[in-house]
Amino acid sequence: MHKITLSHGSGGKLMHQLIDSVFMKELDNKTLNQKKDSAILTIGRKKLAFTTDSYVVKPIFFPGGDIGSMAVYGTVNDLSVCGAKPLFISLGLIIEEGLDKSILEKIIKSIKLAAKRSGVEVVTGDTKVVEKGSCDKIFVNTSGIGEVYYRNLAVENIRPGDSVIVSGGIGEHSISVLSKREGIAFGTEVKSDSAPLNGMINRLLSSSGGVKFMRDPTRGGLATTLNEIVRSRRFGIAVNEEDVPVTRGVRQACELLGFDPLYLACEGRVIVIVSSKSAGKVLSVMRKDPNGKGSRIIGEVCGENKGFVYLNTTSGGRRILEMLSGDQLPRIC
Amino acid sequence: MHKITLSHGSGGKLMHQLIDSVFMKELDNKTLNQKKDSAILTIGRKKLAFTTDSYVVKPIFFPGGDIGSMAVYGTVNDLSVCGAKPLFISLGLIIEEGLDKSILEKIIKSIKLAAKRSGVEVVTGDTKVVEKGSCDKIFVNTSGIGEVYYRNLAVENIRPGDSVIVSGGIGEHSISVLSKREGIAFGTEVKSDSAPLNGMINRLLSSSGGVKFMRDPTRGGLATTLNEIVRSRRFGIAVNEEDVPVTRGVRQACELLGFDPLYLACEGRVIVIVSSKSAGKVLSVMRKDPNGKGSRIIGEVCGENKGFVYLNTTSGGRRILEMLSGDQLPRIC
Repeated sequence: MHKITLSHGSGGKLMHQLIDSVFMKELDNKTLNQKKDSAILTIGRKKLAFTTDSYVVKPIFFPGGDIGSMAVYGTVNDLSVCGAKPLFISLGLIIEEGLDKSILEKIIKSIKLAAKRSGVEVVTGDTKVVEKGSCDKIFVNTSGIGEVYYRNLAVENIRPGDSVIVSGGIGEHSISVLSKREGIAFGTEVKSDSAPLNGMINRLLSSSGGVKFMRDPTRGGLATTLNEIVRSRRFGIAVNEEDVPVTRGVRQACELLGFDPLYLACEGRVIVIVSSKSAGKVLSVMRKDPNGKGSRIIGEVCGENKGFVYLNTTSGGRRILEMLSGDQLPRIC
Repeated sequence: MHKITLSHGSGGKLMHQLIDSVFMKELDNKTLNQKKDSAILTIGRKKLAFTTDSYVVKPIFFPGGDIGSMAVYGTVNDLSVCGAKPLFISLGLIIEEGLDKSILEKIIKSIKLAAKRSGVEVVTGDTKVVEKGSCDKIFVNTSGIGEVYYRNLAVENIRPGDSVIVSGGIGEHSISVLSKREGIAFGTEVKSDSAPLNGMINRLLSSSGGVKFMRDPTRGGLATTLNEIVRSRRFGIAVNEEDVPVTRGVRQACELLGFDPLYLACEGRVIVIVSSKSAGKVLSVMRKDPNGKGSRIIGEVCGENKGFVYLNTTSGGRRILEMLSGDQLPRIC
């Protein structure tokens, strides 16, 4: 492999290879090596979470969201799943010469609203403009700082028997962006699930014990994120296909286009791993939240098949659910 | 103005208009409104500095630096001029499909070296890949967190009579990038001044009193940065043209190409405003540092001509030095 391909940005196998063979190899340090959604930093007596994401989604407006709100929520969620309260956001824009000022204004208004909705402040920013043809309309980077208020989230806490919960229908973000981009109308309009999860996660962590670990299934989807969790661990995860929430719109789109919903990115969903005895309580807290109404237990952590994710299929079969290889959908986030 | 133009990213007048009319208007909050190189945040008892910058420099390798080291040093310097010790850096990459992996590796190695040289850690990152033609090779975002150890830097401290120091020859970064991009060879090869200033600034703030304010003259150059300092203030700044350090290479290039060095971006220089009685001491500390050898007093803060920067020209005249209007050089950083 001598050239960077779209698959290197897909969230799947090739991206992990790139991260390991280039980034981790050179930049190796304790914090980076944790490979969490956010870096956990100690400054004085405080633990802070710090994260960054660039957004190159195409098109920049889609049903249920846009590049601006999505960038804010994505960063808010990356902080939240690490047990941090999101506080401050930075905003780095790369704009293509010739972009309508009204489009920029619309994006900034959306960022404002998203920041308000998630209780964060945009405190610093940077704008670069490149010549026409040197970028595609606008790229947005958001980095974020949060204060860690819940310190007991770690993949090391996970044990066989723990329950695996997902907070709602999967793949809605990907299908929403794709349908808008390709101009395909499905029977039902699919809206992106892009949303801030800090409110729900905060209530969850404050009211229920037993939560071991969380991660949001973005690029690479549910299957890839679960694989990241089990990778090199002394446990596996078994997922029951029939329990995975997939809305009719996503199902129709996937059948039509040949996608597997398990590999489609979400932007407002979270995977929660929780002790089986706390699962009921956690589920009820999650379901009370508008962003967690569709929460379901989709599987469990198991002692056998260490390092693998298994799918118990609807038809009664069983197969390994691998990490995404190749790229289902470029520029989805 | 209905379209975004290259001048909106130049660091000059149009960029300030865009910031005020779109970003500040919508995102308005106390921290953002300070318009510093870094946001100053209070978390517990600590004061933290937080900054972000995207780099789109073309070409990505140039004499004296590359997009990777420049991104690290730029963020390090934005934290340093706010009296903060740079600690943690995030790295967001947007890569064009088809980029040679060896180029990416070279950039990451350069980032590693730059981080080591500046004593910071790259603790979190993100990689996106876009289709060929949707970005120009690679764009880099670095955000950074530092701990504020010197709390007395504020433009409000500046008084008439204070001295204005610049830490070395101006415009070298711009000319280096430009000469490489356009394939123009000047008599003398000009190397970018891109460098980390945290070491020098730390020694400066620890050993000398009297430092009121600092800022690094990046986009828009010395003239624009000085204008940002005096804007809406009860003082002006008078600069003596003959005292401004401009190397022979930069002077030759400017004469040939019709540029004014006062508007060319530096990436490793700092403007220090200091009480006149401390100026000598500060100057001697700065000159002991490899990145401050060329430090000079270039002018002083004055009570008349409030809000303006004046240039006492070499020929004995006097003229207003305005903020950059238009764009001398796109994609210089």
